[in-house]
Amino acid sequence: MATMNYKEVSAIARKRRQANISAYYKVPQTDVASLPNNLTEYALKSSYYDAPELEIIESEAPTILENIKTRKWSALEVAKAFCKASAFAQELTNCLTEVLYPEAMERAQYLDDYLARTGKTLGPLHGLPISLKDSFITSPHPSSIGMSRWANEPTNKDAVMVNILRSLGAIFYCKTNIPTAMMMAETNNNVWGECINPLHKKLSPGGSSGGEGALIAFKASPLGVGTDIGGSIRIPAAWCHQYGLKPSFGRFPVTGGKPSIPGQEFILAVNGPMSRSLESLQIYCSAVLSAEVSPWQFDHKSLPIPWRKNMIQPAGRKLRLGFIGAHDGLVHVQPPVQRALDTTQKALEEAGHEIVNWSVELHEIIVKNLVASFYDLGGTAITELLTPFEEPIFPAMQGYTIAAKAELNVSQMRSKVIQRNELQQKYLDAWNATATDDKGPMDGIIMACSPWAAPRLGATQKDFYVGYTGVFNFLDFCACTFPVTFADKSVDVPRDMKSFHQLSEIDGRIQSDYDAEFYHGAPVSLQLAGRRLEEEKVLEMVEVVADVLKQAGVK
Amino acid sequence: MATMNYKEVSAIARKRRQANISAYYKVPQTDVASLPNNLTEYALKSSYYDAPELEIIESEAPTILENIKTRKWSALEVAKAFCKASAFAQELTNCLTEVLYPEAMERAQYLDDYLARTGKTLGPLHGLPISLKDSFITSPHPSSIGMSRWANEPTNKDAVMVNILRSLGAIFYCKTNIPTAMMMAETNNNVWGECINPLHKKLSPGGSSGGEGALIAFKASPLGVGTDIGGSIRIPAAWCHQYGLKPSFGRFPVTGGKPSIPGQEFILAVNGPMSRSLESLQIYCSAVLSAEVSPWQFDHKSLPIPWRKNMIQPAGRKLRLGFIGAHDGLVHVQPPVQRALDTTQKALEEAGHEIVNWSVELHEIIVKNLVASFYDLGGTAITELLTPFEEPIFPAMQGYTIAAKAELNVSQMRSKVIQRNELQQKYLDAWNATATDDKGPMDGIIMACSPWAAPRLGATQKDFYVGYTGVFNFLDFCACTFPVTFADKSVDVPRDMKSFHQLSEIDGRIQSDYDAEFYHGAPVSLQLAGRRLEEEKVLEMVEVVADVLKQAGVK
Repeated sequence: MATMNYKEVSAIARKRRQANISAYYKVPQTDVASLPNNLTEYALKSSYYDAPELEIIESEAPTILENIKTRKWSALEVAKAFCKASAFAQELTNCLTEVLYPEAMERAQYLDDYLARTGKTLGPLHGLPISLKDSFITSPHPSSIGMSRWANEPTNKDAVMVNILRSLGAIFYCKTNIPTAMMMAETNNNVWGECINPLHKKLSPGGSSGGEGALIAFKASPLGVGTDIGGSIRIPAAWCHQYGLKPSFGRFPVTGGKPSIPGQEFILAVNGPMSRSLESLQIYCSAVLSAEVSPWQFDHKSLPIPWRKNMIQPAGRKLRLGFIGAHDGLVHVQPPVQRALDTTQKALEEAGHEIVNWSVELHEIIVKNLVASFYDLGGTAITELLTPFEEPIFPAMQGYTIAAKAELNVSQMRSKVIQRNELQQKYLDAWNATATDDKGPMDGIIMACSPWAAPRLGATQKDFYVGYTGVFNFLDFCACTFPVTFADKSVDVPRDMKSFHQLSEIDGRIQSDYDAEFYHGAPVSLQLAGRRLEEEKVLEMVEVVADVLKQAGVK
Repeated sequence: MATMNYKEVSAIARKRRQANISAYYKVPQTDVASLPNNLTEYALKSSYYDAPELEIIESEAPTILENIKTRKWSALEVAKAFCKASAFAQELTNCLTEVLYPEAMERAQYLDDYLARTGKTLGPLHGLPISLKDSFITSPHPSSIGMSRWANEPTNKDAVMVNILRSLGAIFYCKTNIPTAMMMAETNNNVWGECINPLHKKLSPGGSSGGEGALIAFKASPLGVGTDIGGSIRIPAAWCHQYGLKPSFGRFPVTGGKPSIPGQEFILAVNGPMSRSLESLQIYCSAVLSAEVSPWQFDHKSLPIPWRKNMIQPAGRKLRLGFIGAHDGLVHVQPPVQRALDTTQKALEEAGHEIVNWSVELHEIIVKNLVASFYDLGGTAITELLTPFEEPIFPAMQGYTIAAKAELNVSQMRSKVIQRNELQQKYLDAWNATATDDKGPMDGIIMACSPWAAPRLGATQKDFYVGYTGVFNFLDFCACTFPVTFADKSVDVPRDMKSFHQLSEIDGRIQSDYDAEFYHGAPVSLQLAGRRLEEEKVLEMVEVVADVLKQAGVK
């Protein structure tokens, strides 16, 4: 047993968080239950912000960078606006863990002085406030990843990505909430508690980068960095109506981050950017993967592939896109997601893009392998940290407790690797087989990010399902989410459950849970997946799709 | 138990090999014991070849390709010359496993017809005979990797690399001998028997790509493809006086090859080319990694990094090279290798290149981790295939038998991965720390490939040591061997063993075993290692070093 239980640990952590916020901002104490569903709108219309602050926090990264560079805004006033917004976001959604306001302001002042003195910006992200998922180590702050074990333990070495972003001019001002060990699809843990979705307070912001999703959706961050091992960037990005890029392993350095399951490389965890603006993602990627930074020179796991441009050739050509519609072979999507899929397909076809027939044949076995591997590899690693603090195990994480009792041996692990590699190659072979005599293989795949637009809080405790996103972690393909629409009770009517043929028990439960009235206003997003290490092309394709949706008037 | 024991299996396999050779060539039965040490010289001076055959087999790949392209030679006559040479090489060194003469000739005829009909070559390797290590699957031929289990079992799907090379115009005519499961540093197994070094018949050609080393050194192959997990390309390339490139994982497709330990990815096995000519390696690499081939489009594990040129910038600048001299922290090199190191260092310094102080501090722990991982991960995998056939376990492989009795579990494996990743990052950090205020970090590392020039046959059964090469497998760095000189009894005198301070017991045994008279004439090579995925730069650096040695008159 540890010297404290999780309740004592949690009290210390929460007290620290509160004190660090209170030292700077007096946030109106609010009864969230009395507020409208959309907390973001509520906050923006409240008297909390003044007009200059509103102008700043409603801006996207390109504008912020430009206005700091041209000295229309100081980095300090920008940093303060986002610190202030994050304090309110925390009050309304519980999206923060560690609070870094003093160092953010100090850094902002340094950058302002630097610009004044040299006439130059420090780098392409000069003055941009970037929020970080709790797992990115910014010493000496703890990096709890939602576990008592780490919640109050100082750290001593910044993550490689943190150093890179800082050297490019980014300002860190807060770290964001996550589920226990970052292994759930919604954001809840025994240290910091539950995070809610600011676009619809009764819904989950997703997870594991759920604090990011909430903070960005609240307009309290222009850009955040999450991590993804089964959908942890894309699920919150989708449920919070954002663009979120899950890269393939090796593009962005992972060294020095806090992993869910240390030493586990069967499914490779990656990190990537999340934002309301696609252009912000592009700025981030090209800055980090520039020749000047060359992360592969100092990070062992990074690949020497600089950020490439104009990957769709010839430029402007029509795309060939695989499409996964009503279900992925295991679980159907709820009606709002179905409408987003239908609308997107129609808009793409009308714009002259080709929808390619694409089978979900391999998804079931991939998803089963993926989920089993989390338990098999993470069982002991995770439970041995939770038990000494008497942490209750969330229902969605019971699999870890069971798996911890009987660990696989090396021969069993080798069998799993063999099967994984075969499935990866089979999926790629099928992709290549979409080529025709006169056309190359499909460019990407469009599909849902989850069965839900965004589920009610707690829904994924019973019905944990990350198959829509996890398939691309298993394959190490890259994928990016994009917002499409909002659930609308007038059109998103429930499926006829009498004729509905469920693919699995969880499928039936999820579909039965759909309630048009309750979900009205929920954000709906989709994802576009590309081959391994084709991040540039994925963002270019998402840009095409977003433009098509805009042209078609979809919102 | 299997239906046959290894002796019966071996008899069938050897009979097949003999019959396939005899159907085409009448090779003089020779008592190797009565021949001089240098079998290559003996063969070239014998009456076995006619003048046109000699001209062909003594040519390097660039000449062969040019002469076929300009129709000075037909692909068929080239293929026949190498088939004939390989038959003799087999008789004198036991370097072959499967014999593919009929299909080689058929393919050569096809290529000749293609060139005649179209006026074009099929690809950049049009007509080049390429020998393949036994592990590359060329269906339907068995791919034994030296194990009874596979020795007579047909295969049904060519390795990805085989398909690529064939599509580029290569001709496959034989497969080459390997040690059991490709996990020894010399080439011996219970199916095909022992392979000897044609440059000095009492020495080992190395392993595990030892049949390749012997065949190429015999001038019976202009270029071969080996694999490397602990030194299996570089050890035979070095001991047979060749250039052999061990790339980082992901450059060249490994899918569809026969692995030593299926599903083992702790140390990543790779494949790469071996040749007497550095230019041949460059031709091979640029052909396979061309934009036209783009292996990453159809092989899941391949990285989208096309072959790059002019990596040393600015062109022609002097290099900064780390140097590992008399020992690697565990084992000293024997006197001929010491002379090669001294000579190379002196020549480089005289040519204006900088030798950077480089520590072997991390080598001991890396080597210990590497060797332990082979046993821990391969124990069950290998022994469960050997036991049913009653295969005797070679002394160098006893560690697998021991490890098979107690397999690691997942948590233990994760610990190993964590430690490996930390060591990889530490080594890279130390590399980067060689930068100075006005100079970038060192470009590469020059060191021995093994303690020996090439050891006497059987020496590595007792004194198995692959630390010199294995360190770069553990780090996933790339490295290439280069020939330097030959052991010379007049200058390579034994170290004074009275004052010799052994670093380990194996160090003392290896050094005591040195015998200037016995080893006279042994080929001596070194290796140059580069960072991860810097294969192009490594070959460019080796070219610089080879030119410096040539200018300095070293041979």
